[in-house]
Amino acid sequence: MPQDTQAAAIREKETGRLEAFSDGVFAIAMTLLALELKVPHFDAGGNMADRLISGLTNQWPSYFAFVTSFFTVLIMWVHHHAIFRLVKGVDATLLFTNGFLLMLVTVVPFPTAVVAEYLRTPAAGVACTLYSGFFVLIGIAFIVLLRAAFRPAVLDPDASTATIARLRKSYRLGPPLYLAATVAAPFSPWLAMGICTALWIVWAATTREC
Amino acid sequence: MPQDTQAAAIREKETGRLEAFSDGVFAIAMTLLALELKVPHFDAGGNMADRLISGLTNQWPSYFAFVTSFFTVLIMWVHHHAIFRLVKGVDATLLFTNGFLLMLVTVVPFPTAVVAEYLRTPAAGVACTLYSGFFVLIGIAFIVLLRAAFRPAVLDPDASTATIARLRKSYRLGPPLYLAATVAAPFSPWLAMGICTALWIVWAATTREC
Amino acid sequence: MPQDTQAAAIREKETGRLEAFSDGVFAIAMTLLALELKVPHFDAGGNMADRLISGLTNQWPSYFAFVTSFFTVLIMWVHHHAIFRLVKGVDATLLFTNGFLLMLVTVVPFPTAVVAEYLRTPAAGVACTLYSGFFVLIGIAFIVLLRAAFRPAVLDPDASTATIARLRKSYRLGPPLYLAATVAAPFSPWLAMGICTALWIVWAATTREC
Amino acid sequence: MPQDTQAAAIREKETGRLEAFSDGVFAIAMTLLALELKVPHFDAGGNMADRLISGLTNQWPSYFAFVTSFFTVLIMWVHHHAIFRLVKGVDATLLFTNGFLLMLVTVVPFPTAVVAEYLRTPAAGVACTLYSGFFVLIGIAFIVLLRAAFRPAVLDPDASTATIARLRKSYRLGPPLYLAATVAAPFSPWLAMGICTALWIVWAATTREC
Repeated sequence: MPQDTQAAAIREKETGRLEAFSDGVFAIAMTLLALELKVPHFDAGGNMADRLISGLTNQWPSYFAFVTSFFTVLIMWVHHHAIFRLVKGVDATLLFTNGFLLMLVTVVPFPTAVVAEYLRTPAAGVACTLYSGFFVLIGIAFIVLLRAAFRPAVLDPDASTATIARLRKSYRLGPPLYLAATVAAPFSPWLAMGICTALWIVWAATTREC
Repeated sequence: MPQDTQAAAIREKETGRLEAFSDGVFAIAMTLLALELKVPHFDAGGNMADRLISGLTNQWPSYFAFVTSFFTVLIMWVHHHAIFRLVKGVDATLLFTNGFLLMLVTVVPFPTAVVAEYLRTPAAGVACTLYSGFFVLIGIAFIVLLRAAFRPAVLDPDASTATIARLRKSYRLGPPLYLAATVAAPFSPWLAMGICTALWIVWAATTREC
Repeated sequence: MPQDTQAAAIREKETGRLEAFSDGVFAIAMTLLALELKVPHFDAGGNMADRLISGLTNQWPSYFAFVTSFFTVLIMWVHHHAIFRLVKGVDATLLFTNGFLLMLVTVVPFPTAVVAEYLRTPAAGVACTLYSGFFVLIGIAFIVLLRAAFRPAVLDPDASTATIARLRKSYRLGPPLYLAATVAAPFSPWLAMGICTALWIVWAATTREC
Repeated sequence: MPQDTQAAAIREKETGRLEAFSDGVFAIAMTLLALELKVPHFDAGGNMADRLISGLTNQWPSYFAFVTSFFTVLIMWVHHHAIFRLVKGVDATLLFTNGFLLMLVTVVPFPTAVVAEYLRTPAAGVACTLYSGFFVLIGIAFIVLLRAAFRPAVLDPDASTATIARLRKSYRLGPPLYLAATVAAPFSPWLAMGICTALWIVWAATTREC
């Protein structure tokens, strides 16, 4: 193999391994979200069937938080995918900005569980502030990743400037919208969760390619 | 590389990444099912060996629910595989219908744990209604995925119409059969679980290719 | 692409996907084993540092059971690998015998946790019978998989008969040796665990290729 | 295919499968770290919002231990990657030294959880000794893996001797530095954790290629 082709093959393999690793982290984080769905327990006595029904239905904040987080992480995976399609090499900067994002992804089940537990209590405002604020952080991590990915050192030279500009623009929306939810959360936890829900639905509806 | 071949290669890679991601979610969900098998605990006193034996054997609903769910998800993985073999590209519709199915797959350990916990209690009817009803939902998600996969935009143009027709037909059976189990569950939880068990055995026995 | 080459490529891809899926299940099951290592808890009071030290050292049955199970599953992964290297296609029989083995692999953390919990109690005999007996079952599942893999329908026609004969022979040893451990367990739990430990060490030491 | 090329292809595939398997274990271990972040619980009464805030902030040792372990394992993954890029084949020795390292990787959430639980108690010294000491063990496992990987039997004959020498040298630093942290831990748990934190930051900052 001539030197150049070999180098290209190795670099492609490197990107592939980082993508596969990232996909693994996304897949595991999404699956672990479901571990927060707990079997309802209650003391014996009374009509047990009725109590199981109310135990299951009373857990709706868990179901709601689970669905919201699952689709939000799924959309993050699609976005991650869209970025790495334009990347042709991996260097230390890209590796660690990606690692920082993956760290936040693995943590998503934690604020999700806090919302599930406290959404119907007087602490709902705190829980939803944590939840929305965490996605502000993820939005920022995505912008940092975008900057790292679009440096000449790793960017595919054939990547269309239109695609790059479009991605850059679309990512600027995340942090301020999640910040609005974070600011609203202490006053209206439901408005905050509504914004988080609306965001993944809008993103899902407007995803063109993947 | 000529433009056409390159486009084909990229698209194939895209499908591959979505398949690998889906496989990861299936594999993790199947492995997490086993987390519901808990070490029996009891207060000290009496013959401890005898108590461990009865603790282990009394957990048979857990073992039964685990085996049923494991093979049902395994068969879902085979079906998922059969669909994606006919797909040559990924678009947003396919991505999100697939994502919806994956979300349900990650949740399977939850109704499984509810059945394991309540199968021998007066709440068995509720637990088995939840379990069977959940597979009605998964059956519907599969039909939606089938529709999304067999659109001209993503379908392999070389896919045989006979195979497509066969798949379409076979998927129509799932929801009504699981619905029958769901309707039967409140009256006879065991009939419901029997139908769910019979279904995966019949599907396993009739799988020709994979 | 000529029809034959294309068919070969598709079949190879199929084997690859089944192998990748199986690897995922092995990797997750091995990682979940470590979840059984629990942080020691104790009531406040006394010298807390001393109590944490004794809490950590008193957990040695957990560490021992973890190491034994980890390497046993690692060796199972190597064996699984050795079998699938000789396989060129996948059919329903191979898929479900492999699925049955994977199901048992995902369950390994359960008997491991039972041994960790009860090894130093009067119920050690029961725990070790369960543990050894479970590996008898896995040994049988491997023999069934071997039979499924070495049918002409899926076997690589170029597979050397010497390799096949060697694999067949080596797999016959597992079930009787684990059965000996199972029979010994009620009388001497330690002899049973010693056999299980000796087995993975001998297998690791005698693995030539992988 | 000529015999030689075929052998090379098979061997490369083998390395790929071992790498993918190792990546899976790394990804799962890193994701499971986040399971140690628990939802704070407290008795009802008082201002619930305030109590959730203090419950969340009081858990900072968990967050700190999580971040330190996450990035340390991420860097281990990069190092693992750097070693396997120079490897062209797999034999039993490499397989089991790699397996030993993977076993330690899966255990990382355990000392992490011990530090998270006891960092602010009188048992902090014990917890941090365990934590730092565990990374001494991992550092040694890496040196053993390096020796196994750089034997002529599996080393890529084209691997540059300069790269090999550089890797060998850089790995010698890990065990003594973690040993220093381990020795310091009983006297100053914070110094120990500071060394562990400084180490991953320095490694991240000095990673050139990946």
